[in-house]
Amino acid sequence: MTQTVVVGADVGGTNVKYTLLDPAGRVLAQGDIPTDPEDPAGTVARLAEATRSHTGEGDLVGVGLACAGIVTADSGLLGRAPNLPGWEDSDLAGAVRAAYGPVAVAVANDVNAALYGESRYGAGRSCRHLVMIAMGTGVGGGVMVDGDLVTGFADGAGEIGHMTLHLDGPVCPCGNRGCLEAFCGSVGMVRRARELAALSEASEAWRAMAADHGDSLTTRHCFELAAAGDATAMRFFAEVGRRLGQATASLVNILAPERVIIGGGVAQAGDLVLQPCRDMVAHHVLSAEGRSTPVVPAELGPHAASMGAAGLALAVGEAR
Amino acid sequence: MTQTVVVGADVGGTNVKYTLLDPAGRVLAQGDIPTDPEDPAGTVARLAEATRSHTGEGDLVGVGLACAGIVTADSGLLGRAPNLPGWEDSDLAGAVRAAYGPVAVAVANDVNAALYGESRYGAGRSCRHLVMIAMGTGVGGGVMVDGDLVTGFADGAGEIGHMTLHLDGPVCPCGNRGCLEAFCGSVGMVRRARELAALSEASEAWRAMAADHGDSLTTRHCFELAAAGDATAMRFFAEVGRRLGQATASLVNILAPERVIIGGGVAQAGDLVLQPCRDMVAHHVLSAEGRSTPVVPAELGPHAASMGAAGLALAVGEAR
Repeated sequence: MTQTVVVGADVGGTNVKYTLLDPAGRVLAQGDIPTDPEDPAGTVARLAEATRSHTGEGDLVGVGLACAGIVTADSGLLGRAPNLPGWEDSDLAGAVRAAYGPVAVAVANDVNAALYGESRYGAGRSCRHLVMIAMGTGVGGGVMVDGDLVTGFADGAGEIGHMTLHLDGPVCPCGNRGCLEAFCGSVGMVRRARELAALSEASEAWRAMAADHGDSLTTRHCFELAAAGDATAMRFFAEVGRRLGQATASLVNILAPERVIIGGGVAQAGDLVLQPCRDMVAHHVLSAEGRSTPVVPAELGPHAASMGAAGLALAVGEAR
Repeated sequence: MTQTVVVGADVGGTNVKYTLLDPAGRVLAQGDIPTDPEDPAGTVARLAEATRSHTGEGDLVGVGLACAGIVTADSGLLGRAPNLPGWEDSDLAGAVRAAYGPVAVAVANDVNAALYGESRYGAGRSCRHLVMIAMGTGVGGGVMVDGDLVTGFADGAGEIGHMTLHLDGPVCPCGNRGCLEAFCGSVGMVRRARELAALSEASEAWRAMAADHGDSLTTRHCFELAAAGDATAMRFFAEVGRRLGQATASLVNILAPERVIIGGGVAQAGDLVLQPCRDMVAHHVLSAEGRSTPVVPAELGPHAASMGAAGLALAVGEAR
């Protein structure tokens, strides 16, 4: 007896995470292989080898590939890709067809794929209108309207991290001031953590943390102090949550999603960040319904984009 | 010989503007009748009388009705309508059918109708992805993705005027601080005009304007001074344009529209407001393509919403 299988993969700077799903969305296998930063076709060929070892007698019907950068779904091409410059302007869909043969192929930006995954298998199940904010080193975003991912003109949509929250705010990696990413990306958060440590009202523990870790300070250290109840750490995450909430409230005013999904590593701070965010939504959204828009953590974890890529390939197959 | 005709109407607090179009979008007639603030059915019946006087032997195939407030396209119902409380919770589509008989019926929020009108007949022709910002007493908005108006959950989308641009900014009519509307709606602009008049660096002419007009000061007075080259007036509109640009740049980052259309009375200040707005877009949008997104004035003027309502009724008929 053969089983119908679909593969989804999420190409990152160091490795490619993959997920095999059955048509009902059950996870059959997950794993990862190294990314060759200079060789998209070779990497996808090795992905095909790795996933074939799982499919066995299975009937592979589709492959989805997610990648950070500007991805054009229709043509299957990757445009600008700051995290993978050696992959820029490559034919992702062509590499998949060369490695896998005649299967349904879908390609997508990684945050869009994660949003699609959450909408089909995770925190956004049964929703048609969603916004996702992915808080990592940078801050990425995705928008779904009436069940479709919004890619916009020249596939430029979803740069939620560069909404300007304060014209005179802190400098963002993009060069502007006061972007959401400057407040809520881990680069900006670590800088703010050091600023707080220089203030006389900072807790002893916070100052010790900044001094002990120096250049290797991360948001995880800040989270550990917050989990232990440190007052400066609580204030730090409340500030982050308030800025996340300013952006989220504006997104709810603009788009009226059914839910806003917060993903990425920083989101693991959970209600420390999400509760101040929800408070902002409750006060800064105009419509009564919008004020109670659920702001929820992502459910699929680091495999969200590979699961979403698999789901997109399933959808391509279903539409055939 | 009979001519095929479609009617669009835009219900405002004091009057109903209407437009008769042929299927090619040519304007056959335009006019207005008074709004009865307590009687939606009676008002629509009088609208039918007025438009019948124009159609003559014409074959009326559809009627579109636009109204400020929360409008649900599928059910044809008007929900909250702060400008027309006597019309709240009324059956707009039912009133149209009662007055006009069995024709194609479309109902829409007024800014969404104006955006649809601009997309079909005006500043957004041939575009699939658009954002519209309507600068009046308040600031309204509309979003089009892939040719469809975005209404969102509970028809709450498009409240672009309540994006928070500065958490400690001026108070908005909605009660929050620093909304786009607080900076760029005429209520907020007039307040800011008076603040500027109290500053020692304000021009003589600006101070005289504020003193002469007192409580009846409007943005038109400010515009007249700017048109005459007054330095304080130029600064005033540059500030407005910069805040409009902050919001516009964020919208381009989120949605990547092909164009952003600026409508409403305040938009008549033209490049005084639009040029600083474009400068913000050029500097605060992440993607290279997005930085040159055209920011253009609306073309259809006060009849945009009635023309768009007519267009929506045509689209309903075409889809049949």
